[in-house]
Amino acid sequence: MTLSLLVEASDGRARAGTMTTARGTIRTPVFMPVGTRGAVKTLDTMDLERLGPPIVLANTYHLMERPGADLIAEMGGLHRFMGWDGHLLTDSGGYQVFSLEPKISERGATFRSVYDGSYVELSPERAVAVQELLGSDIAMVLDVCTALPADRAVLRDAVDLTVRWAERSRQAHSGGDQAQFGIVQGGVEVDLRVESAERTVAIGFDGYAVGGLSVGESRSRMVPALAAATGVLPADRPRYFMGLGDPVGLVEAVANGIDMFDCVLPTRLARHGTALTGEGRLNLKNLRFARDDRPIDPGFAHPLSDRYSRAYLRHLLVTNEPTAGRIITLHNLAWLADLTARMGLAIREGRFEALRAEIWSAWAPGETPHPG
Amino acid sequence: MTLSLLVEASDGRARAGTMTTARGTIRTPVFMPVGTRGAVKTLDTMDLERLGPPIVLANTYHLMERPGADLIAEMGGLHRFMGWDGHLLTDSGGYQVFSLEPKISERGATFRSVYDGSYVELSPERAVAVQELLGSDIAMVLDVCTALPADRAVLRDAVDLTVRWAERSRQAHSGGDQAQFGIVQGGVEVDLRVESAERTVAIGFDGYAVGGLSVGESRSRMVPALAAATGVLPADRPRYFMGLGDPVGLVEAVANGIDMFDCVLPTRLARHGTALTGEGRLNLKNLRFARDDRPIDPGFAHPLSDRYSRAYLRHLLVTNEPTAGRIITLHNLAWLADLTARMGLAIREGRFEALRAEIWSAWAPGETPHPG
Repeated sequence: MTLSLLVEASDGRARAGTMTTARGTIRTPVFMPVGTRGAVKTLDTMDLERLGPPIVLANTYHLMERPGADLIAEMGGLHRFMGWDGHLLTDSGGYQVFSLEPKISERGATFRSVYDGSYVELSPERAVAVQELLGSDIAMVLDVCTALPADRAVLRDAVDLTVRWAERSRQAHSGGDQAQFGIVQGGVEVDLRVESAERTVAIGFDGYAVGGLSVGESRSRMVPALAAATGVLPADRPRYFMGLGDPVGLVEAVANGIDMFDCVLPTRLARHGTALTGEGRLNLKNLRFARDDRPIDPGFAHPLSDRYSRAYLRHLLVTNEPTAGRIITLHNLAWLADLTARMGLAIREGRFEALRAEIWSAWAPGETPHPG
Repeated sequence: MTLSLLVEASDGRARAGTMTTARGTIRTPVFMPVGTRGAVKTLDTMDLERLGPPIVLANTYHLMERPGADLIAEMGGLHRFMGWDGHLLTDSGGYQVFSLEPKISERGATFRSVYDGSYVELSPERAVAVQELLGSDIAMVLDVCTALPADRAVLRDAVDLTVRWAERSRQAHSGGDQAQFGIVQGGVEVDLRVESAERTVAIGFDGYAVGGLSVGESRSRMVPALAAATGVLPADRPRYFMGLGDPVGLVEAVANGIDMFDCVLPTRLARHGTALTGEGRLNLKNLRFARDDRPIDPGFAHPLSDRYSRAYLRHLLVTNEPTAGRIITLHNLAWLADLTARMGLAIREGRFEALRAEIWSAWAPGETPHPG
């Protein structure tokens, strides 16, 4: 296979391991920062190297529109275009497309471009071809992503069409060094999640994503659907929860056997002045930080951000200085990378439940985990 | 003296040397990036360390309004607030204030705050006190900065009042490790420039600035006024041209005996997509760069920016990704630092005129330097 996963430790259903591709290795669990258009907002590629995420996500839909997949291929592919030697995962465009109220047919999705209003067609085959031009290390199949809550009949149709598109995507994929992941759908319907997972696994992909669970559902309905899906997915293939970035969500996903996540949340929050810390979310614009000489998270020293005080950041935020968003972006990404590393270590040392309880108490005080 | 300058070489009127303060040394000529509110836009302090400017400018007016000089003093001063161990120069607020249509009296300037519209008073003594709270290495006196063109009578009054304010500023300054610079005014009137310089030198400062020459005059009228002022300034004190950042302006200022400059131009241009290069200014948004795989300036390799192609930057610019402004800011500041270093080396090697001609031919083709 193009990509392999060695599960080195597990604790309950949580697991820690090493994923290997032609490009190198990735320790799991892993959070993937989002570089929508080939850049993580406010950072450049050298910043990413200093932060050290082993893998970054880029958005197929945005890149196929601007600057275009052909242009990126001409420039040597997305890695070379960005100057990035680490791993890249490209989504299929499905998530963006389904926010644009597309017309769905057996063939694919038709929708209006967010850039110029023109009609764009995205088929499973085109999503494969575009991602091959981008040259990402991991490509995703085009799926039908349904906003929740949704009627069971709608979810049923989405599962069926997603499976048929997955078959076509697998056919269309030329392989080489690029891995391809299938996507499990089914909303919060446990039996549909199981069926979607079984049928996707039957096609056979390098890894499997759980999609459509960050689109409106409550956590109490999300966890059973997630657990149902991961219960069916093969143990030796990576499992990726799409669009998850809050600490409690992350620890619950890991508790249910997930290895990979991505989300714009930590970077978007950062640009709006909100930091992730051991005390929970801090809105650094708050007046109470005006004379606070401590670093963003006194319990987390990181060389890229710990010299800057809350007072300094508050000043930069209230005066709209772009430097603030940059520093908090560096912090939030470093903090989440540390959180996932701590989860991996806790799994290896058989104390994952203690860390899970700690994260719940800092981030959702008074609440408790749902039975996994 | 708090600050000394050793002129180590000269070529015509151009000079290269080393400035020494309690904090360390600065090789001249030197360009000072502008960190208006305690940050260079899109960069953080670690970026400045990697870029390596020995001195950065911050704006007294903006910092006294937000977050306030008392708060910064409470946080240990501006160096500690920013996390910056290099030199800081603070302007006096004069330049900002005079764009706010102030009411001027013998006592000082009264004007409306850009932040909340309230009335603010800035006197020479208050400008000194605020800069002492900020704890910069070099403080500037409050001056009367006249927009050009201006009537001779207006310039005459501005010179007189600037001198009286300079006397009060020198009295008010407590010294210590903070150097204080006087400012020469007089518009483009050569005799007023000479008089202003003589009277300011008679007061006795650690260094001297030439102010009010980046406020509307043409280069052909600027150079004689500049030359008249620097002709009078003592050879063993640094000379600072306020608000100058274009390559031809820089080389002409150095040709006329200037050691220091600052300007928002290289950073502001960068955020709008314009790069400084050996070919002149490049607007990287231009379609002709869409497939240009070369770095910003193929003749200037800098480790912070030379991995990024023009095609990549054009893509980030046209999609409004903030990363673009950051990369071009790094490039423009590195490029200008290199230009000033090349000027210093050329002076030391007795070939300044050749470099001057080279800069003119790249940046103002067809024009020639004015007699120095």
